[in-house]
Amino acid sequence: MPEEVLQEAQENLFNYKGAGFSIMEASHRGKEYGPVHDAAISNLRKLMNISDDYEVLLLQGGATGQFAILPMNLLGEGQTADYVNAGSWGKKAVKEAQAIGNVNIAGDTSSDIPTRMPDNDRLQLTKDAAYLHITSNETIGGNQYMEYPQSDAPLVADMSSDILCREIDVNRFGAIYAGAQKNLGPSGVTVVILRKDLIEAGNSTIPGIFQYRNHAANNSMLNTPPCFSIYILSLTTQWLLDKGGVTGIQAINEAKAGRLYAAIQSTEFFSGTAAPEYRSTMNITFRLPSEELEAQFISEAAAQGMSGLKGHRSVGGIRASIYNAFPEAGVDALIDFMKDFEQKNG
Amino acid sequence: MPEEVLQEAQENLFNYKGAGFSIMEASHRGKEYGPVHDAAISNLRKLMNISDDYEVLLLQGGATGQFAILPMNLLGEGQTADYVNAGSWGKKAVKEAQAIGNVNIAGDTSSDIPTRMPDNDRLQLTKDAAYLHITSNETIGGNQYMEYPQSDAPLVADMSSDILCREIDVNRFGAIYAGAQKNLGPSGVTVVILRKDLIEAGNSTIPGIFQYRNHAANNSMLNTPPCFSIYILSLTTQWLLDKGGVTGIQAINEAKAGRLYAAIQSTEFFSGTAAPEYRSTMNITFRLPSEELEAQFISEAAAQGMSGLKGHRSVGGIRASIYNAFPEAGVDALIDFMKDFEQKNG
Repeated sequence: MPEEVLQEAQENLFNYKGAGFSIMEASHRGKEYGPVHDAAISNLRKLMNISDDYEVLLLQGGATGQFAILPMNLLGEGQTADYVNAGSWGKKAVKEAQAIGNVNIAGDTSSDIPTRMPDNDRLQLTKDAAYLHITSNETIGGNQYMEYPQSDAPLVADMSSDILCREIDVNRFGAIYAGAQKNLGPSGVTVVILRKDLIEAGNSTIPGIFQYRNHAANNSMLNTPPCFSIYILSLTTQWLLDKGGVTGIQAINEAKAGRLYAAIQSTEFFSGTAAPEYRSTMNITFRLPSEELEAQFISEAAAQGMSGLKGHRSVGGIRASIYNAFPEAGVDALIDFMKDFEQKNG
Repeated sequence: MPEEVLQEAQENLFNYKGAGFSIMEASHRGKEYGPVHDAAISNLRKLMNISDDYEVLLLQGGATGQFAILPMNLLGEGQTADYVNAGSWGKKAVKEAQAIGNVNIAGDTSSDIPTRMPDNDRLQLTKDAAYLHITSNETIGGNQYMEYPQSDAPLVADMSSDILCREIDVNRFGAIYAGAQKNLGPSGVTVVILRKDLIEAGNSTIPGIFQYRNHAANNSMLNTPPCFSIYILSLTTQWLLDKGGVTGIQAINEAKAGRLYAAIQSTEFFSGTAAPEYRSTMNITFRLPSEELEAQFISEAAAQGMSGLKGHRSVGGIRASIYNAFPEAGVDALIDFMKDFEQKNG
């Protein structure tokens, strides 16, 4: 998370802007919290250029919750939803949707190495599908969409791990959702951006707490919102606006990832896990010549203060997660360490 | 919230115990967050004397989420669940459960004035009901159970507004759930205490994210937990342990409420909203001779720094919410203000 955000949160934690209490204690209907809530939403609207055709909801339960709640709302009886399965998050989304209704796997690259997305022009789409669901970035495989697929059905994307990393045209989507803990702030709040006509057409027989329309009608205060997480979301989105918005951070992200991929490509010692045309700017995955060297790499890096480089236990290897708030200096330090490690062990 | 909790959170917000990062940034699988998560659960186990027959889950979505998720798990097809409706929260719980399965209203005092709970020995219980659901404290009406009903079916309680306010025997319950924002900490985390046999017998055809068994099997880390809210929960429960646990706070709560009710009873100018045998120790509700005087009372109190005294818009009147962390001095200040107000306007 950005240092400036943490500093502001710390200063105001005990006594929020002189109110005499913490924002954690503020009533969600009170005059202190209201502007925070509204700022989080309007900052997202500005950053992503979201039109009035869309609602921006702040919910609980993470993207995993949306894996179920989205089909509960949008996948009607007798309908089919198309899903792309390109990794472990796509697989989870499919599994939850299958508990709700008919799912067609439109493309499956979940076992491919190098990791990749299915070719957009080869998707097996269902006529009159309720929607087409994709995972915009697979954190474990390190594969990310560069161009989103075209479909007659509304395009729905889990963008948990790459929302706000680059400019996108929200108008191409029926729905976008994202857990906050990668690029948006702390865990505990989930951003859901939905086209209003889809909200209106949604299933009205499910429990009220799961109906998007109820959250929309109550400005995401149908029940007590996760106020502190939304407060940090408001600060993080303001930080990003101050930093030049998505255009600014996109250039930084591409530079950070570009330098790392160049370092990987410059030698046979390292090999990238993702196919070049689907290389993620958020999760850079690569292998070393042996698992022993990988274990040594991870442990020596940790000793130098570079933690979290171990690939997910399901795939092994190395993974450098360089989300928006990850500093450029951190990327350069990692590249220096990689060169040094190769020299000693290559 | 307790001052000590906010102070500790503030000190550690930027740099958690010297780790070099905020607890908000810590991986939920890392060595910094793990002990925080486990402490929140073990503190709750100690405070409530919870046996190994029960799981303690830390979930998202608030009690309103549990209004739906609990019947999704525990109300099987062809079964009926008994619900007590004694106010606005009971009513909401009933409505969500009705979207899932058969509901029998075992007792209904939701429109009674004075506010009260149904008599335990007059409940219309269903033979072989899946469970009997109660709301232990109705925040708007100010009515609270002093003795819980007996039933053959597992007793399930929404304790959002009075968990940890007094000693209870958890073994009498099949399930207890509570949003954290009253007595447990900040919004964004929901405590769910469940008898293990009920978890095991639960519905396994609903989406995995809603199945209690999956959260239990993953120590409430099935997906990324709301780490910061759980951190504050761990501090608040530790604060309560340090303060003498539930026994200690119960005595304080009874003293606080007792003084306020004595002040209300000492004059005809004020009249309590709840029947004496169901008077809440958390939400003290009362009326003044006219709505005009009530509006004046609320506005003059606010000018003296006593905010939040307005009764819920659905019922009017005055409501003093004096949860665990509300200081005794605040109660005494309110009583002084009440006497003064009566002298000037009585």
